[in-house]
Amino acid sequence: MAVNRVVYFVKRPEGMISESCFEIREEAFPTPEEEQVIVKSLYASVDPYMRGRMSLGKSYTDPFPLNTPMQGAMIGEVVDGGDTDLKAGDRVSGVWPWAEQARIARAKLKKLDPSVPPTAALHVLGMPGLTAYIGLTKFGQPKPGQHLAVSAAAGAVGSLVGQIGKILGLHPVGIAGSDEKCQSLLKLGFEGAVNYRHAEFPEELKKALPNGVDIYFDNVGGPVTDAVMALLNPHARIAICGQIATYNGDPASWPKRPLFADLLVSRARAEAFIVGEHQADFPAALTQLHNWYRQGRLRVEESISDGFDQLIPALVGLFHGANRGKAIVKTN
Amino acid sequence: MAVNRVVYFVKRPEGMISESCFEIREEAFPTPEEEQVIVKSLYASVDPYMRGRMSLGKSYTDPFPLNTPMQGAMIGEVVDGGDTDLKAGDRVSGVWPWAEQARIARAKLKKLDPSVPPTAALHVLGMPGLTAYIGLTKFGQPKPGQHLAVSAAAGAVGSLVGQIGKILGLHPVGIAGSDEKCQSLLKLGFEGAVNYRHAEFPEELKKALPNGVDIYFDNVGGPVTDAVMALLNPHARIAICGQIATYNGDPASWPKRPLFADLLVSRARAEAFIVGEHQADFPAALTQLHNWYRQGRLRVEESISDGFDQLIPALVGLFHGANRGKAIVKTN
Repeated sequence: MAVNRVVYFVKRPEGMISESCFEIREEAFPTPEEEQVIVKSLYASVDPYMRGRMSLGKSYTDPFPLNTPMQGAMIGEVVDGGDTDLKAGDRVSGVWPWAEQARIARAKLKKLDPSVPPTAALHVLGMPGLTAYIGLTKFGQPKPGQHLAVSAAAGAVGSLVGQIGKILGLHPVGIAGSDEKCQSLLKLGFEGAVNYRHAEFPEELKKALPNGVDIYFDNVGGPVTDAVMALLNPHARIAICGQIATYNGDPASWPKRPLFADLLVSRARAEAFIVGEHQADFPAALTQLHNWYRQGRLRVEESISDGFDQLIPALVGLFHGANRGKAIVKTN
Repeated sequence: MAVNRVVYFVKRPEGMISESCFEIREEAFPTPEEEQVIVKSLYASVDPYMRGRMSLGKSYTDPFPLNTPMQGAMIGEVVDGGDTDLKAGDRVSGVWPWAEQARIARAKLKKLDPSVPPTAALHVLGMPGLTAYIGLTKFGQPKPGQHLAVSAAAGAVGSLVGQIGKILGLHPVGIAGSDEKCQSLLKLGFEGAVNYRHAEFPEELKKALPNGVDIYFDNVGGPVTDAVMALLNPHARIAICGQIATYNGDPASWPKRPLFADLLVSRARAEAFIVGEHQADFPAALTQLHNWYRQGRLRVEESISDGFDQLIPALVGLFHGANRGKAIVKTN
């Protein structure tokens, strides 16, 4: 009998997440029901926000329940369209379980534009692109000529923030965790790139931003944010998108500066957002992202792990800076 | 020969400020010049922001130069109006040196409304009132029924924030440093008041704010802010007005929580302001404050030290929680 592999979330992490929080179980393949479709999972997105949902307690999303399948943004191919308009072979995107095959309500699937590579729906034309565009324009309030710092700049969101910033006339400087990542940022159009693992990181950042920081797009928190906070210009805006340095709960990786005192000195604003609360802005943002993408002005490096059994290591690896660009697992 | 006592700023503090940063010098009395007025100082305002100006380095105001007179908001009586419209005996307010008598440009003086107690120009109708009103309305964006937390609530700004919040339909809870101060807050209309020196302060604060915090007006930073950050409601707004816990530079009094991670969990906004950058809002704010004050709806406790030689101890005392309400020195 054919088996359908499914990744289950079985243990809440204490501190750093590990592969032992998950388990691959084998189940029967799903069969269609009314208004539901069977999809074969082709690609799965692995994202930092998933760590937040693995803990109980206050967070901006509901925690994942234990002993249920992990889920996230997916690309798939329809195996059986059931009674819906979808046909076998259609490419779709949506949120569904980390399973080789899954049954999903038709209403929750979006048919992919066949003229665009399918994985674009996981980055430029998906949540990372929307997050970068809405975060930068709505919370960063960019004005041409201003100076933009981006943390986790080699990640999917960060690299798009820098590229969009450049298109909007900003001077983007990226912060990343290796010299190789920094080189790739310069190729994407960042005007500066600084490796936070260098011992002289704060000084190097200051050199890369001699005119200070007007907008800080923060994916990270922790000591990286400390270094940026020392460089804020008057009336700077900080768009807080993620704080990955703090997700694993170790105070040693928390910021050391009095962040609100830094805001006060610069009469600055820090505002956190999650893109899912800004759905009214999605259509305009997607139109803009789509145009820039077709013009070749937005690129995202894909860090693709091959094989369904790579889902768990790829997610754990996110928190060790293993990936560059968008972390994706090719599941089929 | 009569001498004019003047407080000079003579040493930049390292860490906590002390009386040794200042010196009283004796000088000749000033004489009038063109378009200038001689005033006798009646009352001097001592304010937490003065600590920031005593240090070099990045701040939101220029540092005080060494070996010059301290200065601040003052109330005075005209001794000699010179060639201006002011007459001896007129009451005026303005910013001038901590001197028994001073010479000031007429253009920098405001004649006081004789129907209002003169010291009101140092609180309800002065910078503290403007700071409270503009900070709460513009940065707190209050909506009736929401829950307001105020740190340093027994101070001039904090006590006005709570009273204005109450008028605007909020539920204000104050945080202060003694049970006596907390009692006085309840009399001013705060719906709750919590003493941050209690060992169980975070738990008591949580009890006083069972519905969380929609607006936090922060004058303090440090561990008080840590406790409030644990209670933020979704889309909370934090108006950062002061961070007195951090002014003396001791990291032990800095916040311990990852503040930006707290913002992220609640998709909250923290924005710092200094009221001097919002002068366009002053006329409307003063009209409103004046009306409420005349209606008896805004009260400020005055903590008046008597005597010119009390200026220095009163300023130092601010940083030890010595005062309640507005700290004022009666200088003549």
